[in-house]
Amino acid sequence: MNLLLLEDADFIAADRVRLEGRRLRHLHEVHRAEEGDSLRVGRLGGQMGQGRLLSLEAACAELEVSFDQPPPAKLPLTLLLALPRPKMLRRVFQTVAAMGVPRLVLLNSYRVEKSFWQTPFLEPAAIREQLILGLEQARDTVLPDVVIEKRFKPFVEDRLPQLAAGTLGLVGHPGNHPPCPRAVNEPITLAIGPEGGWIPYEVEKLQEAGLQPVQLGERILRVETAVTALLARLF
Amino acid sequence: MNLLLLEDADFIAADRVRLEGRRLRHLHEVHRAEEGDSLRVGRLGGQMGQGRLLSLEAACAELEVSFDQPPPAKLPLTLLLALPRPKMLRRVFQTVAAMGVPRLVLLNSYRVEKSFWQTPFLEPAAIREQLILGLEQARDTVLPDVVIEKRFKPFVEDRLPQLAAGTLGLVGHPGNHPPCPRAVNEPITLAIGPEGGWIPYEVEKLQEAGLQPVQLGERILRVETAVTALLARLF
Repeated sequence: MNLLLLEDADFIAADRVRLEGRRLRHLHEVHRAEEGDSLRVGRLGGQMGQGRLLSLEAACAELEVSFDQPPPAKLPLTLLLALPRPKMLRRVFQTVAAMGVPRLVLLNSYRVEKSFWQTPFLEPAAIREQLILGLEQARDTVLPDVVIEKRFKPFVEDRLPQLAAGTLGLVGHPGNHPPCPRAVNEPITLAIGPEGGWIPYEVEKLQEAGLQPVQLGERILRVETAVTALLARLF
Repeated sequence: MNLLLLEDADFIAADRVRLEGRRLRHLHEVHRAEEGDSLRVGRLGGQMGQGRLLSLEAACAELEVSFDQPPPAKLPLTLLLALPRPKMLRRVFQTVAAMGVPRLVLLNSYRVEKSFWQTPFLEPAAIREQLILGLEQARDTVLPDVVIEKRFKPFVEDRLPQLAAGTLGLVGHPGNHPPCPRAVNEPITLAIGPEGGWIPYEVEKLQEAGLQPVQLGERILRVETAVTALLARLF
């Protein structure tokens, strides 16, 4: 937690917050904070600034806060991801939020096991929890939008062409394709497949929607690693 | 497991192996393999090739194997990493092996909690287990070397200058430094700090050993994510 992320419900006055629960525990156990300490704070969806610990007790903490800096810029990116397996999914939410992805579309694919769609980690509160961990890690205040598309074909045929219009459209896909470009200076729409990759039909449909296959070399990376590697290379 | 990685003890003849345990379960449960199926195989430390499932039973499987391809090239890199917390450490071993890092030095730092050095995940068998998972993921056969350096100063003063000689030496460190270079065409020695970063004294010592600080932007990334992002950008 490199940023203490505050929500509206934490405020007891315009410049004062009261904390309990997870963030309070973190102050005690990880920060080992003391009264008078100064901490980086951010207002969810808003600015970042400083907080001063007025009191720190077992059951609650109070801080005086002020905000004067904008959060870091997001990447000019829409990321489409074949739904990862649940355990991976949680970390992917954190990574996506930490890396500054503003919009994530979770998509079905032939190689996504049907059971993955049943995971409680797809419930809005569970998604939000992981995104917030990513924002706290990276020092950002703005939640990414997460869109869930359980049907591949209608999304790719009907909505993707519009989403991808005016952007560089790419599909990360192992194989005999051009290497993923570097340091691109335009908005990007990037699709990353499931473990085992997209099937040829899906690559074809993504191409029809304006996304060109690119590769990252011979090594097959886990989804979370592939997301980070592709974004680090593209931006 | 994108590669079935075979060890000497698996061989019952020059072209035949017998599997039990984890890899057998994986064949049953994840691959849902059947007799006659063809699978990618690799010989630990050696070549890659094809295996054909001669028999697949509850207790054991036999494959006929042949080897004809070299494993993918490693990165021209020595990676120094302040020892991450144990949970992160296991994934870092996988990531390092999957990304093709040939040599990893785990280093002490002021901000590494002393207890981290006690983790059972640092035992040779535990390290090897995670490295093998990374090789199986990425389709590689060659284990990275892992060196453990519990004392920062003697390592950085006495051994690092030689290790880094003739390479581009870099320290990943947030702050007002040049951005991390891209697509470098020479060998690299890269040092990545602990959560909370290197302390100024450590950055100074690393600089004296020939490593220059570079940054990846405002966002603070988890160690595992920073490793992937820096390598994807550098190579």
